[in-house]
Amino acid sequence: MQFHLDGFYPGDPRFSDPQDRVVAPPLKRPLPQQVDVLIVGCGPAGLNLAAQLSQFGNISVAIVDQKDDRLLVGQADGIACRTIEMFQAYGFADQIIQEAYQVNEAAFWKPDADKPNQITRSGKVQDVADDLSEMPHLIINQARVHDEFLKVMLQSPIKLEPHYQRKLLGLEVSDSGEEYPVTVKLERMVNFSQYSQEIETVKAKYVVGCDGARSAVRAAIGQELVGDPLNQAWGVMDVLLNTDFPDIRLKSLIHSNNEGNMLIIPREGGYMVRIYVELDKLKENERVARDQMTADVLIAAANRILAPYTIDVKQVAWWSVYEIGQRITTAFDDSSAERAARVFLAGDACHTHSPKAGQGLNTSVMDTWNLGWKLAHVLTGRAAPAILATYSAERREYGQALIDFDRKFSAMFSAKPKSAENPDGVDPAEFQRYFQLFGEYTAGVSIQYRPSIMVGNGEHQTLASGLTVGKRFHSAPVVRQGDAKPVQLGHCHTANGAYRVYAFAGSAEPMSASCGVKALCEFLANDANSPLLKYTPAGADADSVIDVRAIFQQHHQAVETGTLHPVLAPHKGKLGLRDYEKVFCVDQRPESSGGGKDIYAMRGIDKQQGCIVIVRPDQYVAEVLPLDDYAGLARFFDGVLI
Amino acid sequence: MQFHLDGFYPGDPRFSDPQDRVVAPPLKRPLPQQVDVLIVGCGPAGLNLAAQLSQFGNISVAIVDQKDDRLLVGQADGIACRTIEMFQAYGFADQIIQEAYQVNEAAFWKPDADKPNQITRSGKVQDVADDLSEMPHLIINQARVHDEFLKVMLQSPIKLEPHYQRKLLGLEVSDSGEEYPVTVKLERMVNFSQYSQEIETVKAKYVVGCDGARSAVRAAIGQELVGDPLNQAWGVMDVLLNTDFPDIRLKSLIHSNNEGNMLIIPREGGYMVRIYVELDKLKENERVARDQMTADVLIAAANRILAPYTIDVKQVAWWSVYEIGQRITTAFDDSSAERAARVFLAGDACHTHSPKAGQGLNTSVMDTWNLGWKLAHVLTGRAAPAILATYSAERREYGQALIDFDRKFSAMFSAKPKSAENPDGVDPAEFQRYFQLFGEYTAGVSIQYRPSIMVGNGEHQTLASGLTVGKRFHSAPVVRQGDAKPVQLGHCHTANGAYRVYAFAGSAEPMSASCGVKALCEFLANDANSPLLKYTPAGADADSVIDVRAIFQQHHQAVETGTLHPVLAPHKGKLGLRDYEKVFCVDQRPESSGGGKDIYAMRGIDKQQGCIVIVRPDQYVAEVLPLDDYAGLARFFDGVLI
Repeated sequence: MQFHLDGFYPGDPRFSDPQDRVVAPPLKRPLPQQVDVLIVGCGPAGLNLAAQLSQFGNISVAIVDQKDDRLLVGQADGIACRTIEMFQAYGFADQIIQEAYQVNEAAFWKPDADKPNQITRSGKVQDVADDLSEMPHLIINQARVHDEFLKVMLQSPIKLEPHYQRKLLGLEVSDSGEEYPVTVKLERMVNFSQYSQEIETVKAKYVVGCDGARSAVRAAIGQELVGDPLNQAWGVMDVLLNTDFPDIRLKSLIHSNNEGNMLIIPREGGYMVRIYVELDKLKENERVARDQMTADVLIAAANRILAPYTIDVKQVAWWSVYEIGQRITTAFDDSSAERAARVFLAGDACHTHSPKAGQGLNTSVMDTWNLGWKLAHVLTGRAAPAILATYSAERREYGQALIDFDRKFSAMFSAKPKSAENPDGVDPAEFQRYFQLFGEYTAGVSIQYRPSIMVGNGEHQTLASGLTVGKRFHSAPVVRQGDAKPVQLGHCHTANGAYRVYAFAGSAEPMSASCGVKALCEFLANDANSPLLKYTPAGADADSVIDVRAIFQQHHQAVETGTLHPVLAPHKGKLGLRDYEKVFCVDQRPESSGGGKDIYAMRGIDKQQGCIVIVRPDQYVAEVLPLDDYAGLARFFDGVLI
Repeated sequence: MQFHLDGFYPGDPRFSDPQDRVVAPPLKRPLPQQVDVLIVGCGPAGLNLAAQLSQFGNISVAIVDQKDDRLLVGQADGIACRTIEMFQAYGFADQIIQEAYQVNEAAFWKPDADKPNQITRSGKVQDVADDLSEMPHLIINQARVHDEFLKVMLQSPIKLEPHYQRKLLGLEVSDSGEEYPVTVKLERMVNFSQYSQEIETVKAKYVVGCDGARSAVRAAIGQELVGDPLNQAWGVMDVLLNTDFPDIRLKSLIHSNNEGNMLIIPREGGYMVRIYVELDKLKENERVARDQMTADVLIAAANRILAPYTIDVKQVAWWSVYEIGQRITTAFDDSSAERAARVFLAGDACHTHSPKAGQGLNTSVMDTWNLGWKLAHVLTGRAAPAILATYSAERREYGQALIDFDRKFSAMFSAKPKSAENPDGVDPAEFQRYFQLFGEYTAGVSIQYRPSIMVGNGEHQTLASGLTVGKRFHSAPVVRQGDAKPVQLGHCHTANGAYRVYAFAGSAEPMSASCGVKALCEFLANDANSPLLKYTPAGADADSVIDVRAIFQQHHQAVETGTLHPVLAPHKGKLGLRDYEKVFCVDQRPESSGGGKDIYAMRGIDKQQGCIVIVRPDQYVAEVLPLDDYAGLARFFDGVLI
């Protein structure tokens, strides 16, 4: 964590305004009449976007919601590794990790061959494969994630708070070239459902609809969710219980012979579990209309599926019935042949699917993680509006892939187990293999954006075979040279909207005449084509648009601070202090000291030649280049910055 | 983290009262007229004691301070590994680790043999030895540590807040057998130094003076600090600077030839450093009276010591001059031949020493970490007041050892480097060796309390040679059986005032007829001499006084939850829910998955016989016993519980 750059102030350094570090301000501001971005909806997608945009300080943002106040109990609970990586960029991963349930293993249960009306364990598998991510797979009430986003917003330079009790009435986009072309009408609500007839009008440059499956923003731009609306019905409940089922604190996927299937997800705190029960398999006489469903019906079904084990439910914290549908809009924005996008959709507003693979919240936050920095770059004048078209292109393809995955996963999950009577059923071993195969997918790390102005074509991919162009930058351990601290390299990539240029050194002596990193620094510091010189605004910190970092193969004690090129220890802030956290080394400490992990070997980096890895502000690898490909480096940034 | 035991509530689970999880209450209560414990002083010692006592819910506590409000800038900054282990018990280690500077290496500088008026690096050493602690050595403004203690207090069952602007006028202890024998008079202050003449009287069962080197409580009980009041003068400053000194982000110990010595401690945030400058070696013409000293004098001295390097100070955040003295009181309480203690001293109130080895804050919090649970046990009726005598006995011996260490360390630090002219000087290599030798000491993990009613004599130490009786329980990695989570075993030892009984299994099959852990559980569950049965109050959770945990050598998948003895999965709370976090296994996962660390090997535990390790509520090993020494187990608890 870096702070004190512009002078020493006491208090919690997470507050951007030093005054607030002493006593945080009461806010509750009135709704502004004009903003750069109006976000509709305080779900994960909306809050993540608000948190991201709030980091810049010179972007005005409002976020509204129909609800009376912040969410206290949410339905989403699964947090994929990739999402925790993003939390790390905001600085609250540790807080969530401490509080959450950590999914380390999954247990699979099937009908007992000898007693087919009883279940037996078919196996246990590791939930997250080795080195898939440095972050765990977690389960936590989504409201606690919201709380962390709200804290980031409040501590930001613009001290952003949501405006609750606002219902979207409609929006219009003007084509007359106004600076704030979107006009939004909102009605103030009283107690969530009561209308006040008090109408507010907000003018915005951009509007983002994060307002869920019944999105009013989506309706206003004429988009529709298309696909299978409903197919399978499931019951879900969060319960406190006692049981003799042995794997109650493991994620357990249970296929019974005739009573249907069930999923157990242990929850945070050590006692609560979420149970998903398949309802289509309820016995004929148990079938009840959805409005007559009770938690007791779900509990009875769970007990039949679990036989010979039983659950004794002490408290039902929440329960619901849902029907799985997989639907998606044809585009995630309102762009047309005539006009670039001014309104965007994110999260459930543009794609819905089943909750069982735990992808809902994760996909929603990744939507706005993709959109946020792009909006910020356009609004701060760093990039042309054309980059905004990549949002719908990149995310809609992924949304469609998710729906295809979900359809297959749900079908397999709901299928009967294979047996003599059910030769067409799903072999539990096959289901278990499928589950493992798709671990990378459900962890959120398999997304690979296609080549575009901001994703290269992978021509030089062999120089860093484990840092795939288009995929997220896969972090690995290194030692920070300046203070000998073992760190994850990727953790320097905070949510500040800057590109990273990682210069992985080749075999030459660091900062010697033949050192490629030194030559690159010379180019960046002095050449007329240097993107660092061209795109860093006058007066801004050298690393605020493009953040250059170097990694050497030598022991960290073998790289001397005094020899470093000034690009790697830039003067920053009001006082012009040097930043000594830009240089890293392979962790050459002995294994007994926790070292011995070589990032070059782990990520397939060419030890002879080294390479440049350009990473987008959302942590996706934009390009891999030879260490001396200055033209390629300049060309990339000429395509995305102005 | 465990919560939801008594039912589901939304919000931040760190708040003990579920209502406060939604909106934390405004407090600022009036000073009570009667309390169990009155703590004088909101420094680290006082706040730690308040945080500890606030956990119990049925102990009334008040903490007062002369200051107007919480501390914003403190002088202490070094946090030893052992202290972070204690923070972990309160749940805020991660927060502090994220924000702090982490001391990983120390650099040593000496006069250059060829150019004796310039310094040259003599070496770098790892700061914290491998496996000394699972926690790092940190540097952070003590005020941020205070903030965390204040949060723990506020979130506790008694929602404790300090009462500021109270100055102690005096206290009296009655011998007439009253329930609240200590009468304390306090005067309300206005703006720190202005007296209001408004006098408050508080009656207390116990008073603890954590009111610093000028302690009014100490004066009131007739104790005095005895020792060397002053000897060496040092200047200290926290500065933001630029420099060409290469190790500016490492802890650096610098011995110059003729300009004196200097210590650089990098601070949190990446830019600030603390510099200690020896003043006795200031050139004759630089010697200034303390009241005429300026930061510029210190900066000039630093520049002379650092030659050929220079510092360019951009901001002085804080500076001071101090003179080292090592002093200690003859006892840490007011007990006499006639009467048991009612007033205790802790922290600087009873021992002072130099700040350079970073022991002040650490020793202070360890004082009250020792005292807190003992007071709590007496006040909740778990233990007889006799146990309170161990506080002064255990801590004063350590305080004296600290002073002896500090005297030697300070002298070595201030000595001239050995050279042809100074044959009696200190060899820099010897200083570096001394520094490493005492790493265990400065990390705070070398404290070993002597045998007493609550520390065994180590008769069976060979059964767990790495868990020394009298020293802190040295944590190691294990896998929790119920949810397959890799954890540090010691991290289950939260600051809840309970003893831990760790049953390390021998070679027998877990829970088989010959399993010693099973037999121990049978004893604990059924025998009339079982301390679990004798000392757990009716209606209290089974683990609230003595928390039994088992560790097996098998792979965690080889231990089946269904076979566990009920003592190892007790029913708890209002709903009687089972706790599945009591059983751990050796981390048999492959090294590629982060496993392969065997707690039995790391801590010298007898794999054939296993053993029992009793750990005090302050995490010190009380006794090591054979797994079947039920009599020894019963005898230990008969000595400390009632």
